[in-house]
Amino acid sequence: MASDDNATVLPTNRIVHDAEYYILEAQHGGRWAAEDQDIEQRLAALRQKHGAPPNIIHIMWDDTAVGEVGIPAIQKVRGFETPNINRLAAEGINFMRMYSEPSCTPSRAAVLTGRHPVRNGMFNVAFPYEYGGLATSEHTIAKVLSKAGYTTAFYGKAHLGDVEESYMTNHGFDEALWTPYNQVPSLYTAQGQMTALAPGVMFPEMFAKDPYDIDPGWRPTGFVFALEGTKGGPVREFGRATLEDYNKLDPEMQKRTIEFIRKNAAAKKPFYVDYWPIMTSLFGFPNRVTANGALPQEALARLDVWIGELMTELKTLGIAENTLVILMADNGPFTHNGPSGMAETLYRGGKGDYLEGGVRVPAMAWWPGMIAPGQTVGDILHETDLFRTFARFAGATEQVPTDRIIDGVDQTALFLKGDTFSRRDFVFIYTGNVLAATVKGRYKRVWIDEHPGLSGAAFYDLFTDPRETSAKMLPMFPAKGMFSIMKARHQLWMEKYPNAGEARAFPLTGIENARPETAAAGRPRVDVSKLPFDPFEFMKSLSEWNDIQFDREE
Amino acid sequence: MASDDNATVLPTNRIVHDAEYYILEAQHGGRWAAEDQDIEQRLAALRQKHGAPPNIIHIMWDDTAVGEVGIPAIQKVRGFETPNINRLAAEGINFMRMYSEPSCTPSRAAVLTGRHPVRNGMFNVAFPYEYGGLATSEHTIAKVLSKAGYTTAFYGKAHLGDVEESYMTNHGFDEALWTPYNQVPSLYTAQGQMTALAPGVMFPEMFAKDPYDIDPGWRPTGFVFALEGTKGGPVREFGRATLEDYNKLDPEMQKRTIEFIRKNAAAKKPFYVDYWPIMTSLFGFPNRVTANGALPQEALARLDVWIGELMTELKTLGIAENTLVILMADNGPFTHNGPSGMAETLYRGGKGDYLEGGVRVPAMAWWPGMIAPGQTVGDILHETDLFRTFARFAGATEQVPTDRIIDGVDQTALFLKGDTFSRRDFVFIYTGNVLAATVKGRYKRVWIDEHPGLSGAAFYDLFTDPRETSAKMLPMFPAKGMFSIMKARHQLWMEKYPNAGEARAFPLTGIENARPETAAAGRPRVDVSKLPFDPFEFMKSLSEWNDIQFDREE
Repeated sequence: MASDDNATVLPTNRIVHDAEYYILEAQHGGRWAAEDQDIEQRLAALRQKHGAPPNIIHIMWDDTAVGEVGIPAIQKVRGFETPNINRLAAEGINFMRMYSEPSCTPSRAAVLTGRHPVRNGMFNVAFPYEYGGLATSEHTIAKVLSKAGYTTAFYGKAHLGDVEESYMTNHGFDEALWTPYNQVPSLYTAQGQMTALAPGVMFPEMFAKDPYDIDPGWRPTGFVFALEGTKGGPVREFGRATLEDYNKLDPEMQKRTIEFIRKNAAAKKPFYVDYWPIMTSLFGFPNRVTANGALPQEALARLDVWIGELMTELKTLGIAENTLVILMADNGPFTHNGPSGMAETLYRGGKGDYLEGGVRVPAMAWWPGMIAPGQTVGDILHETDLFRTFARFAGATEQVPTDRIIDGVDQTALFLKGDTFSRRDFVFIYTGNVLAATVKGRYKRVWIDEHPGLSGAAFYDLFTDPRETSAKMLPMFPAKGMFSIMKARHQLWMEKYPNAGEARAFPLTGIENARPETAAAGRPRVDVSKLPFDPFEFMKSLSEWNDIQFDREE
Repeated sequence: MASDDNATVLPTNRIVHDAEYYILEAQHGGRWAAEDQDIEQRLAALRQKHGAPPNIIHIMWDDTAVGEVGIPAIQKVRGFETPNINRLAAEGINFMRMYSEPSCTPSRAAVLTGRHPVRNGMFNVAFPYEYGGLATSEHTIAKVLSKAGYTTAFYGKAHLGDVEESYMTNHGFDEALWTPYNQVPSLYTAQGQMTALAPGVMFPEMFAKDPYDIDPGWRPTGFVFALEGTKGGPVREFGRATLEDYNKLDPEMQKRTIEFIRKNAAAKKPFYVDYWPIMTSLFGFPNRVTANGALPQEALARLDVWIGELMTELKTLGIAENTLVILMADNGPFTHNGPSGMAETLYRGGKGDYLEGGVRVPAMAWWPGMIAPGQTVGDILHETDLFRTFARFAGATEQVPTDRIIDGVDQTALFLKGDTFSRRDFVFIYTGNVLAATVKGRYKRVWIDEHPGLSGAAFYDLFTDPRETSAKMLPMFPAKGMFSIMKARHQLWMEKYPNAGEARAFPLTGIENARPETAAAGRPRVDVSKLPFDPFEFMKSLSEWNDIQFDREE
């Protein structure tokens, strides 16, 4: 957080954005203020009509390329259909330039905190064991909205760590059912009969004994598949990592989401709910419903049915016109090492890449009466913007913390006025904690793998070369200095408002119904007194954690 | 043409299709016949109402990827708009799986003749000099429709050769203004100041004298930029290869197209017109009208304005409901060696490739009252199908020649009934005269560059892998024998109905206003008596002409 000598940079009651934002604000602030007046009147009228600020439903699934949903023509090419998702897009905004972080954990952290995950340590993908997770010093959107009177819930794939501090019930959600890790470990079970996991790496009982395998404590065991709980209440394991329980999880989360919506609609209480399905899975469906037949398309076709039911439910409850629904993917398709059916559509690259294919995702917004139908929007927005924008819609801007950088900018105008009303034209693209590329409007500068003997060669024009196949230096020379300045300013601002780290502790503590193996998770399995070192000093010294400030109790 | 001993293969009064078609007909012929009855009633009712069969306007431009027009969301990504073309698509059918030939000359020949260009020698791209072109033994759609009482016209880029036999006025068009070659030579002029042509390769006067350049007759000179004429009348050069005349050509062609339409509407005479603009050009526009700003996008934005005018004109004339309009590109984007702005969208590869990116093109059909609006169609069709389908709409099926293979199949049902009503599920993809790949439904077999030590490795599933990035053998093993049989059957049928060659002669003869250098075009510029060989024996021996039967006068 900001140190004393930096506290003077901005008034402490103002939200701190990344430096580049102020360059735009200095040029457009007057117009933005006028737009905001108009928007405030519309929001006030809506609140007057419904007696409460709008409900927000955020649905985010895995690994999907731009256009894979929401553009029927592309689905013809891919041999599957999502008629309800497409209808939602057609009745609202189809965002063509939503940027995400490049993989699951960072993307989910970004949506919840409104901050690039480099700022809070959540920049790598959680697998058992992490000995880490989202710190409670972060202010999630659930905390922000709770302070403004919202009821909040989280159902789905959180993937935000295994330490108690990272549990969703410790992050402002009134109720939650979530998976702390990627679903992959849950699927490589004896029941799943998957063959892709290296023999015995996690489930040695599936294989014949390996006589050279002399350190049985090396593997993670007893990890938790899903957790559930309520704010301030106990946390419990939900199910086990079996195929049977895996198949139960999404229906259960969908059921709870609908029940949560009904309960709050009946109570006339504003609500916020994240439904982040685990169903875009790595596990096959025995009966295929799409011509395509590959896993992601099958999962999307199934999600689509539920989205249709959700839209009907909102109308039946009479709250559709006071409810914003966002659908989006968390990152690009899992083309590197992923399952069949994961494919590029418009962009090059996929999950994990700083290429557009890694960080541009399908995204759409639906809000009958407030968002005009039939909009296709070419503006840049970043998933962190949702944090700031949701807060504004909820009348909770005052609750956004002002002691740290909030990367998300207020996109209320883009949602309500449409094309060309974005308040950002830039994105800083990180892979892990490395700044890999910077986007400014149609231009992109890649910072890594460059030819250092040139003045930086990796400049792209995303209108003429959307697949980033032909880096150009000479025709783009005016962009060199401008990108260098943006990067320097971004980094200087980061010195003024330093990055924080993730929470570090023993995993999977504080679980009421913990199995013995869960209770032992991550604890040393050897006699520590026989070791010449502290077996957990790694928490401070692994290179991937270089940037982390170890300023909290562990 | 079919030799005597093959004449027994099919009754001589039946159109001969490629072998694979009969496999489908044997399975679906009964249903097709029932559909056809219904279609004939609709067409008869329309003819009754308008007193004439429908007019057909075919518009085809260069080098455009699927989705680049007709899908507004993709245009947001590319930074340009074609609102009229998109409206035409939205009011009719947007074909997501129109296959073309992989480059300009073959594609144009395929549309005009309904035959893969390997069957008539038109499989390479015409540049000065070709000493060749489309033979009059081919029956173009203009000839077919003329016999059924249509007035026909051709305005635009024909690109079908430089010999007199290939002139559009010798191919059934009542009036024509056309470019015999690719437009590139027309643009590398001193006026154009283009820098991409190798110094002096065509216009040595643009450069300082090269003292090592000792064969001035090697270069083509005096080539013709555009020709015009009427059926049976004289043919004249139109303009010269100057920037000024280049810029005049498209407006002139557009003007003549509209005048032709008005004239025939007034005379209540059914008409067929090809407007194949040269405007998707390699020459820049001094004033840009799109954010993208690259040449192809600028050209499309300009074409779009005219398409809007055309749609208005058809309505004003009261003939929109009796006029079928087709818009399409001739092949994929010119990504290999082409100008800026040529980029892949959904598919891998571009112009010249057997990859989907080379041979899948944007295509749409508009016919108010006959084609239902809002259709996105996933069926396979091939541009040769237009020949057969136009003939059917015109009531000219009887005029289709029955002594040769017509690759085009009747897609009337697809146009009038929509999605899933295609009468083909296969495409044979040639590059030049090489069979490079075969498509059957969602599957694709590539025949070249394969691993011969395997049972053929290059099998693709185009639903799960539309970009053809991951060839698969084992999961696709059932396809091996099936594709091999298709290929063998295709080749056996070709033995029964042999390929013909292009017309061969001295170029650019029979031009009323020929300049001296045009009249001398392609004639030996050395004293032939001093040569130990016939300087034109190359016409029979260049390897690219291996397949050609030299059975005509030269």
